[in-house]
Amino acid sequence: MRYIKYIGLFLSLIISMKLASQNKLMTLEELIPGGKNYSKYKVEMPRKLAWLGDALTYVKGDTIYEVNPHKKAFITSIYTVNDFNTNLKLDDAEALKSLYYVNPITSGDNLFSIYTNSKLYIYNDKDKSIISAFSQVSGMNNQDLSPDNKKLAYTKDNNLYMQTSDGVETEVASDPDKGIVYGQTVHRNEFGIHKGIFWSPKGNLLAFYRKDETMVTDYPLVDVSARVAKLKDIKYPMAGMKSHHVTVGIYNPDTKQTVYLKTGTPKDKYLTNISWSPDEKSIYLAELNRGQDTCRLKRYDALTGNLEAELFMETRPQYVEPQNPVKFLKNDAGKFIWQSDRDGYNHIYLYDTSGKLLKQLTKGAWVVTQVLGFDEKGENIIYISTEDSPIEKHIYMVNIKTGKRTKLSKEEGVHTAQISKSGKYIYDWYSSQHNPGKVSFIDIKSGKSYVFYSAPDPYKNVTLPEITISSLKANDGKTDLYYRLTKPTNFDPSKKYPVIVYVYGGPHSQLVDNSWLGQARGWDIYMAQKGYIVFTLDNRGTSDRGINFENITFRQLGVIETEDQMTGVDYLKSLPYVDADRIGVHGWSFGGFMTLNLMLRHPETFKTGVAGGPVTDWKYYEIMYGERYMDTPQDNPKGYKNSSMVNRAGDLKGRLLIIHGDQDPTVVMQQSLQFLKSAIKEGTHPDFFVYPGHGHNMYGHDRVHLHEHITRYFDDFLK
Amino acid sequence: MRYIKYIGLFLSLIISMKLASQNKLMTLEELIPGGKNYSKYKVEMPRKLAWLGDALTYVKGDTIYEVNPHKKAFITSIYTVNDFNTNLKLDDAEALKSLYYVNPITSGDNLFSIYTNSKLYIYNDKDKSIISAFSQVSGMNNQDLSPDNKKLAYTKDNNLYMQTSDGVETEVASDPDKGIVYGQTVHRNEFGIHKGIFWSPKGNLLAFYRKDETMVTDYPLVDVSARVAKLKDIKYPMAGMKSHHVTVGIYNPDTKQTVYLKTGTPKDKYLTNISWSPDEKSIYLAELNRGQDTCRLKRYDALTGNLEAELFMETRPQYVEPQNPVKFLKNDAGKFIWQSDRDGYNHIYLYDTSGKLLKQLTKGAWVVTQVLGFDEKGENIIYISTEDSPIEKHIYMVNIKTGKRTKLSKEEGVHTAQISKSGKYIYDWYSSQHNPGKVSFIDIKSGKSYVFYSAPDPYKNVTLPEITISSLKANDGKTDLYYRLTKPTNFDPSKKYPVIVYVYGGPHSQLVDNSWLGQARGWDIYMAQKGYIVFTLDNRGTSDRGINFENITFRQLGVIETEDQMTGVDYLKSLPYVDADRIGVHGWSFGGFMTLNLMLRHPETFKTGVAGGPVTDWKYYEIMYGERYMDTPQDNPKGYKNSSMVNRAGDLKGRLLIIHGDQDPTVVMQQSLQFLKSAIKEGTHPDFFVYPGHGHNMYGHDRVHLHEHITRYFDDFLK
Repeated sequence: MRYIKYIGLFLSLIISMKLASQNKLMTLEELIPGGKNYSKYKVEMPRKLAWLGDALTYVKGDTIYEVNPHKKAFITSIYTVNDFNTNLKLDDAEALKSLYYVNPITSGDNLFSIYTNSKLYIYNDKDKSIISAFSQVSGMNNQDLSPDNKKLAYTKDNNLYMQTSDGVETEVASDPDKGIVYGQTVHRNEFGIHKGIFWSPKGNLLAFYRKDETMVTDYPLVDVSARVAKLKDIKYPMAGMKSHHVTVGIYNPDTKQTVYLKTGTPKDKYLTNISWSPDEKSIYLAELNRGQDTCRLKRYDALTGNLEAELFMETRPQYVEPQNPVKFLKNDAGKFIWQSDRDGYNHIYLYDTSGKLLKQLTKGAWVVTQVLGFDEKGENIIYISTEDSPIEKHIYMVNIKTGKRTKLSKEEGVHTAQISKSGKYIYDWYSSQHNPGKVSFIDIKSGKSYVFYSAPDPYKNVTLPEITISSLKANDGKTDLYYRLTKPTNFDPSKKYPVIVYVYGGPHSQLVDNSWLGQARGWDIYMAQKGYIVFTLDNRGTSDRGINFENITFRQLGVIETEDQMTGVDYLKSLPYVDADRIGVHGWSFGGFMTLNLMLRHPETFKTGVAGGPVTDWKYYEIMYGERYMDTPQDNPKGYKNSSMVNRAGDLKGRLLIIHGDQDPTVVMQQSLQFLKSAIKEGTHPDFFVYPGHGHNMYGHDRVHLHEHITRYFDDFLK
Repeated sequence: MRYIKYIGLFLSLIISMKLASQNKLMTLEELIPGGKNYSKYKVEMPRKLAWLGDALTYVKGDTIYEVNPHKKAFITSIYTVNDFNTNLKLDDAEALKSLYYVNPITSGDNLFSIYTNSKLYIYNDKDKSIISAFSQVSGMNNQDLSPDNKKLAYTKDNNLYMQTSDGVETEVASDPDKGIVYGQTVHRNEFGIHKGIFWSPKGNLLAFYRKDETMVTDYPLVDVSARVAKLKDIKYPMAGMKSHHVTVGIYNPDTKQTVYLKTGTPKDKYLTNISWSPDEKSIYLAELNRGQDTCRLKRYDALTGNLEAELFMETRPQYVEPQNPVKFLKNDAGKFIWQSDRDGYNHIYLYDTSGKLLKQLTKGAWVVTQVLGFDEKGENIIYISTEDSPIEKHIYMVNIKTGKRTKLSKEEGVHTAQISKSGKYIYDWYSSQHNPGKVSFIDIKSGKSYVFYSAPDPYKNVTLPEITISSLKANDGKTDLYYRLTKPTNFDPSKKYPVIVYVYGGPHSQLVDNSWLGQARGWDIYMAQKGYIVFTLDNRGTSDRGINFENITFRQLGVIETEDQMTGVDYLKSLPYVDADRIGVHGWSFGGFMTLNLMLRHPETFKTGVAGGPVTDWKYYEIMYGERYMDTPQDNPKGYKNSSMVNRAGDLKGRLLIIHGDQDPTVVMQQSLQFLKSAIKEGTHPDFFVYPGHGHNMYGHDRVHLHEHITRYFDDFLK
């Protein structure tokens, strides 16, 4: 009897220990970026991993380490923060406290960029020399170093400046009218544009964007954090209204002269994907019309600004979306590669500079997502594609001559990579659903991969929910839709659980793939702990699945996306452990729009929804993105009407919380307020919350508050 | 047996009929102004009751009736809409469709003002003549007719104009700068100011306000109802900041010259209570310093603008608040009366024009709330006071010579009145808790009162909740605090009910009195139907109870008011049928501020609150009202800090919904947003809702939506 009793005690101890560990829930402070203990479950990866020429380096503490599988020691410490202080002869005031502001320059050998309080140094560690010393001026932004590291271009307010290596400043372009903006990104970062300064390959000339937005309506944002609320006008060109005009200037630092490319009329167009010819004589542009259905690759004379040639044209009834500049071959300046989805999938094409198509280098029902560069001899193009699986990304190279493809990444999952200076090596940074993260050093020639880092599982001491990645057939009977289903922690199949559909659903997104936890977010795991099923499905309209998958939503945003989400919901309803009376939905931005679509097109299905920063009517959205998918309100009144959630506010049945940042410059809060106005008129009752001072997303610790708020709403009205 | 059976059937029929009628709840559409069936339970009173000289008239349908107890028929029809059309010889386009735009002129004999589409006619029905015909010009506002009915002054935008009786327009004062405003109300309607045009007694001169608000910060409101949100700047001078400067101009229509009163420096002061001397030679002003603690009654020469005399000064450490201009005796232009609360209660004082105090005409621990005028011979002053009860208002007259007071109103309740041209008669319009409304014709000389209208009880066919009006002792052990308690319809004393405290609590208010239903609102009745107790108490700081009752809140708004509300809550908790775990609170404006005070100073007591358009920190409120009660933030930092709800946002425990109109020009929405910001920082979770396009209150049908929204919140979190 005593024996059995002890066993019983022992078992109950184990059970209660297990329960205790299971009952200790992970908190939002631990699971949401900005939370006080967010690092606790964050995957730990090498810091500042970067190529220093052909040397792969990363930082740990105050030391830079080099990774080299060919050396005796795989990993060696090569520099410390003190080395830089000593070699640069920095006094106490300027001395670096950490390696935070030290960055290897890939294109050089032993070159570092180093920011101190007052200077940007370009430092050559080989001969311990300072190549350049640029002064840090107050208000400078968009710093862009010339390829020879001898010049620094940058903006202050709306104007463009440069410094030579001795720190002497010259004004490149300026205008007293703040509506004329030099050297900054244009076209609202669409078309792959993310900057406005483009040094020529040898650093002799400086191309830059000039944006005239004087004709764009001022949009009033009000900052209430001041004692007396302050007006902060932004330029927000709404669909169908006046857009800004862009031109490209070429500045010659020697002559101090600028010529503008003669891009001519109509001025209302998009000058995208600026690229220099290797000889610095020409500029290539992908010019897209305002209607976004015709893209012309043009070459301009950098000296005169004259149009030299229109190389080719791409057109499609829906839209053409160039996102990658031409890339010249390493060993043949007469040829370049061009990425296009003209055959239905994004692939690599080889052209000569006359505009003659030489060949299609990749082909298949999968997409090239990134071209990384060339191998050492320039015979192979290194790129990333979805060839293995729509939810994986692998590193490949294709031989330009033979078209032979070689896979360089070894393990399953989602791979990202960077190529070394010479093209000999790449590093491969990847994860998969059950692999939190690994990094390997790949020798391109041999194809050998040397894994030098494997992240520990941050969740090893907690009970994670079960996460399933799988696919369903769309209602066309053929398209695979990938989903992620996160079951409640300590799942009991005999119970009925509430479900939250977490949705984005817009272009340029993929929320489900074979990366760490299948991209399940901290909040998904939090809600799983609380007994919710969390479900996410990538509907048609999202990215990396080919052009037909994407542009079926053209001129009718929200319609097909909603059908696909309902395919997911039908599947959920078929599961015995899903409570069909407690289905909720949450999403942000396009996902907020989708939340509204689901709540209002299927009011009988969704009990509770939380829409963050939602588009409620595309006529309040901006031109570049909005017109690509919806055309203008003038051209597509029926489509706009059908996709307007403002028009459907009267259909609301369930509980709906809308959340917006009052400083949102992307989806203006007017979108939510117009929806409220319509709901009030129609007699329905959405809920609403504002994050004052926040833009399109809530960052910092307020992001924890946001997720507490969202969680509470589901606890109030879905649990 | 059959007999009994039939009786049983009969009884059960009665019971079920009664239950059916009880179960049919009155809806918000019926109980809230703006609702589709709001007229259903509205008390029906005579329309457009007004003195036409000494004839008391009202409108029913297309007919004007006269009430005269001395005539054979008490009520006679005297005009129809067609009479006016015929006599004015209006063509079809101009013809009146109803009497909506016809108004008797009290100061004349058989004089009417009549608006057609294009003209304002002053019509004398005695000889069927048109005295004046003023053109209606687009954009005209603030129309003000001269006492002789021969001139019309008005504003367009920020400028002031007048027309002579032939419709010829003259510009009186204008400025291209919109920050200079002529002829409009100033000082944000405080100090009894509600207009900016003041004709002299015979109509020979025109006094007007000039407001220079160029130095007041522009406050940005954003109207999101436009396709692209539009900025609508208002001038909003916040406590402690720069205030507008006001002067008074005197325009002479004959010479077309204007002189300005030499009111001198400091310019930062309040020019209030403009009054003309009967001979049109002088203007009397009550000049109040920016600190609002010193008021000087001054007389200016209307011809030169020179200061003639400072008649007397009133001062008090807290504040002086003049709200009534001097009023000259009818039969002695050398004497005037002045209302002041200098002895602690608002009373009437008699002065001569040298500024010598002749006597105090009324005295006692009660207040004069309104001086109506004089009797026919000018021997008696007719006024309204609280002499009978703090929660009743009665009509009295006081003999100027003897000081003898005579009560003119007969029945209990709250009386309002208007005096006829000659001073022979007044009409008395009154109600009490159980009297929906009556009107009587009072012959002042005889004191006889002839009730000619008694409104039917609009609720006669429904079950009203039981409403109790009574009082509690404040925590000073002596002050009576009046409250109204509305019990749930079909109250069951054995049950425990949730309570909602409906609160305003700010200056210039009295929510509990002996008027119809004790001022219970439609929403109170609605909530009573749903099983809530609704409780309202007038705390110290509210009006008509004397200056000590009012200004105990000075420099510490919210503190004493909250103590008094808690006296009410303690009483509620003592009631056996109150569920102390379900106490809620709701209020708007100052009542929103009070809701926050109660929720945050007593988080353990209040489970749920709804604060509408709340002040959250007085530093965001305007100068005139704010500095009167709080001084400036610079002078009273401790008081501002202690009264700031923004500082207490972290103390929130219960559920709190804040509601604001995004166009609120009175309590700017910044107040609520600042509160949210603070709550987000402190990790508490208020809820929030916005009524786009609405100002400080929601009007029209949206007011029904508002009350649905408020109700739902209590149903969600208090029921």
